[in-house]
Amino acid sequence: MPSYTAPLRDMQFALYEMSDTAALRALPGCDDLSPDAIDPVLEAAGVFCAEMLFPLNRSGDEEGCRFENGVVHTPKGFPEAYRAFCDGGWTALGCDPAYGGQGLPHSIGLLVQEMICSSNLSFGMYPGLGHGAYAALHRHGTQELRNLYLPKLVSGEWAGTMCLTEPQSGTDLGLIRTRAEPVGDGSYRVTGTKIFISGGEHDLTGNILHLVLAKLPDAPSGTRGISLFLVPKFLPADDGRPGARNAVACGAIEHKMGIKASSTCVMNFDGAQGWLVGEPNRGLSAMFTMMNEARLGVAIQGLGLAEVSYQNAVAYARERLQGRAPGGAHGKGPADPILAHPDVRRMLLTMRAMAEGCRVLGVWTALQQDIATRHPDPARRQEADDFVALLTPVVKALFTDMGWESTATGMQVLGGHGYIREWGMEQYVRDARIAQIYEGTNGIQALDLVGRKMSVHAGRYLRRFFHPLLAFIEAHEGNAALAEFVQPLAKAFSRLQQCTAELARRGLADPTEAAAGATDYLRLFGLTALAWVWARAAEVALPHAPTDAFYRAKVATARFYMQKILPQTGALTSSILAGGGALRQFEDAAF
Amino acid sequence: MPSYTAPLRDMQFALYEMSDTAALRALPGCDDLSPDAIDPVLEAAGVFCAEMLFPLNRSGDEEGCRFENGVVHTPKGFPEAYRAFCDGGWTALGCDPAYGGQGLPHSIGLLVQEMICSSNLSFGMYPGLGHGAYAALHRHGTQELRNLYLPKLVSGEWAGTMCLTEPQSGTDLGLIRTRAEPVGDGSYRVTGTKIFISGGEHDLTGNILHLVLAKLPDAPSGTRGISLFLVPKFLPADDGRPGARNAVACGAIEHKMGIKASSTCVMNFDGAQGWLVGEPNRGLSAMFTMMNEARLGVAIQGLGLAEVSYQNAVAYARERLQGRAPGGAHGKGPADPILAHPDVRRMLLTMRAMAEGCRVLGVWTALQQDIATRHPDPARRQEADDFVALLTPVVKALFTDMGWESTATGMQVLGGHGYIREWGMEQYVRDARIAQIYEGTNGIQALDLVGRKMSVHAGRYLRRFFHPLLAFIEAHEGNAALAEFVQPLAKAFSRLQQCTAELARRGLADPTEAAAGATDYLRLFGLTALAWVWARAAEVALPHAPTDAFYRAKVATARFYMQKILPQTGALTSSILAGGGALRQFEDAAF
Repeated sequence: MPSYTAPLRDMQFALYEMSDTAALRALPGCDDLSPDAIDPVLEAAGVFCAEMLFPLNRSGDEEGCRFENGVVHTPKGFPEAYRAFCDGGWTALGCDPAYGGQGLPHSIGLLVQEMICSSNLSFGMYPGLGHGAYAALHRHGTQELRNLYLPKLVSGEWAGTMCLTEPQSGTDLGLIRTRAEPVGDGSYRVTGTKIFISGGEHDLTGNILHLVLAKLPDAPSGTRGISLFLVPKFLPADDGRPGARNAVACGAIEHKMGIKASSTCVMNFDGAQGWLVGEPNRGLSAMFTMMNEARLGVAIQGLGLAEVSYQNAVAYARERLQGRAPGGAHGKGPADPILAHPDVRRMLLTMRAMAEGCRVLGVWTALQQDIATRHPDPARRQEADDFVALLTPVVKALFTDMGWESTATGMQVLGGHGYIREWGMEQYVRDARIAQIYEGTNGIQALDLVGRKMSVHAGRYLRRFFHPLLAFIEAHEGNAALAEFVQPLAKAFSRLQQCTAELARRGLADPTEAAAGATDYLRLFGLTALAWVWARAAEVALPHAPTDAFYRAKVATARFYMQKILPQTGALTSSILAGGGALRQFEDAAF
Repeated sequence: MPSYTAPLRDMQFALYEMSDTAALRALPGCDDLSPDAIDPVLEAAGVFCAEMLFPLNRSGDEEGCRFENGVVHTPKGFPEAYRAFCDGGWTALGCDPAYGGQGLPHSIGLLVQEMICSSNLSFGMYPGLGHGAYAALHRHGTQELRNLYLPKLVSGEWAGTMCLTEPQSGTDLGLIRTRAEPVGDGSYRVTGTKIFISGGEHDLTGNILHLVLAKLPDAPSGTRGISLFLVPKFLPADDGRPGARNAVACGAIEHKMGIKASSTCVMNFDGAQGWLVGEPNRGLSAMFTMMNEARLGVAIQGLGLAEVSYQNAVAYARERLQGRAPGGAHGKGPADPILAHPDVRRMLLTMRAMAEGCRVLGVWTALQQDIATRHPDPARRQEADDFVALLTPVVKALFTDMGWESTATGMQVLGGHGYIREWGMEQYVRDARIAQIYEGTNGIQALDLVGRKMSVHAGRYLRRFFHPLLAFIEAHEGNAALAEFVQPLAKAFSRLQQCTAELARRGLADPTEAAAGATDYLRLFGLTALAWVWARAAEVALPHAPTDAFYRAKVATARFYMQKILPQTGALTSSILAGGGALRQFEDAAF
């Protein structure tokens, strides 16, 4: 019942008109990335997602995964779609050409990711996890491991997982109990139980490579005693094909609110053979070097679902005739399309302003990732890496909260029909909900922002964001045409600066103060970042607005954002400045 | 996995300490409603809900309703639980003693309703709809219809429905096509299709009484040409038992996001025999006299789900050990209970402040309903009715938005476990979602508030709320101990007054302006009403706080509300005052 069309025009706007494409093309291996080279990739991805993945989304949700005798069956059509996905080269898109990849930068791959998430989030989890395993091995694996495994991950022939969580250990990975004993031949025997393992078992690939956090026999306690191991489901035979079955098995799959076509597995390791990835006891650090990428990936899930929900809410609002809009009839029939009702427009514009704003912010962040990994100058790399480190928790929480709020709003536009499964809108809500939880709950993102990113290197990360934002505001202070956008931005930024200073000051005296304000602060940060995006968008769009409806819509959306969404920064500031006293005073026993 | 205990102590606080129980006991038939009389009812309801209804909530969700050959089978245990519900007299609680009811006022029945919604919302729909049919017939039916049907509805032997929506007609009931032709014997033949009919068909009762909106042959077009008919599934035989099957049948049931154990039916009327209820062409008006009650009932669904989600989030937060809370270890083990983490406390206190505040506001509104229906003085009845008319859209939207937000927050406290079905938390979210949609979407509530309730009788409704609120603020202006509560309340109230005046002024010139600000205005109104509740709660609790933890918790929660939630009123005010220009400027084609 729902439909999806990749928002190519807006993606082009985000990439070509709102981002520093000159900086992108100056990177090694990116010099030929003109629009003529990029557009066909985006178009092909849009067609593949709309035609191959999207039609399996509703049926995948209804059918779910099936667990029988240790085997997970994905829903009908998934294995065929996965083969087509690999054949199309989509698993190889962002991978190293040395292992068969296409070497496309993050800032482009992210847009393809968005389309996959819009079309079929559950499906996207499988190659997404495979890419996570690729990234871990590529960065931390020995050359031998890389040669053996990376080509299979790049081609999509084999998939991967991230095995972190255990029953007693989720957010706090220092509590894990899975153990790894050295065998003596360079390999280890891994034993323990992992839960919530996405793609832990499925029928899409000939092999699954588990990246497992475990403790060496005499490891220090806590997070400084965790190592990372590669544990394949099948040990590769001499010819490179899957050989003997390893001692790892799926014990059960979870029944979840959403992403039902993505298997979520209990994985039992019973002396399974594995190989160390990276340094002993540095596994968490190895994991965390990939976290920025994984968290941005989860952020894009929120964006993708918000986009597809918006598209279908608009389609319904155009067709559904109900009531007379205030201010006179719009249509000629017995009722107006609900698109004419101001409260429906409010809902749609809220969804639109958030999704389009996040798209640009996502591309900006991904472009800095590209610079951080590819730029020849270490200083430029460090700068970009600082920006990414700072923005990652903001983007992860902001986008996924937005995904949840927007899909719920999209559903509301459809009224009762939104609540009915066959219309598809409620699935987006259920699918979106997990993104606020996994890869670190959004509360943990907020603590990462105020507890770590805000303070390290005496606020150096913050300056990577604050300085160019301040420069933008100063550069446009005298611009009358932009004043309605730049003034609210400047006000929000001054609130952000005030709260930053206050949280830093109070947090020194009492760390509970920083934690108490963290979630509000992250939201304040995110909304200010989007205000920057929209002020920039207005700047870019205004010259073309008189003659082009696309740019008029940008200006109108920027105005909507400033007037209707950005004021939340005032409430957040009040709440932050009120401090954490009210949280502390409440007695534990009284909850 | 989840658990539920009726929050009796807080209900007693809301009823006995926060409400005007003297006014309640002064009403005819209420003079013996002392705590000694009420408490046993609440206690028995709490036990029944926890022991009989709650255990069927998860299984009912998993099993859902089954449709076979026109028959709907409710989930296992539902028929038995329904019989026990009737045997316990719970269907009769708020009904007229003349027809076998117990005559309990709304303000007490509402608390029982809350327990039912916390325990098993789907189950509660069936007797809830029966009570709706009871209320419609009781108020608008002929004496003959009342004598014939009311005792069966009061005893719960027969159930009822409200048949309003049609495929082309939801919010806009002027578009309905169902027709009623007079037969000549005082009855009518009703023909048409109704959708989204809760409890349209099920296996709980021997008969189902459909209250159907339909058009008489020469009815005026639009909402002034709608009449209300009673169409029983089985025509009563002479002995009062269900006799011949009427020409009404369930064609299908919907598959929904939640409330899966509540059947949502397509109902086909094929010349079914029916009887007019109320005046010809005044059916919508008859329906709307019951809407206040029905909408308050839906509001309580939001409250009930928020409460049970809160209870289970707290239980998890006490037991789950993860990470070290900032500011030093709380427990002795390897990690602290997450209850010690400020961000978790923020989530729990947000849920608590909203649920407890709404409970009091609900009782206040229900008490005014009681006065409006029972007081001997017509002037007092009118005053109370004004208050209820004004508060109903606010309460419906505020409570159900809160239900959605709080159940989602409760789920977040559980992290990954919140997303797993067996933990039960995600069901509350899915069940809560419908309450924002049915009985008039929350956007429609907002339009009702600004478009009708705000302006009628030159703002008379508003004065029923504004005057006593202003009197409260003035009475406590010099109270230093209350200043931290009364000052924020006064600020919020002054924002509300400013926005009221502005919306009224602008709405006169351009009705799209009032509609554009409606949703923000309703939220502003609701948060201000809750600020009044919490300032009152602080006033009541402060004297007892030094010696009693229950009252200390009230004071601390009031403080949390003022500092962390009420500031949203500032953002809402900014958004309202910015007006609707941004909504109008966006071109339809650009969506």
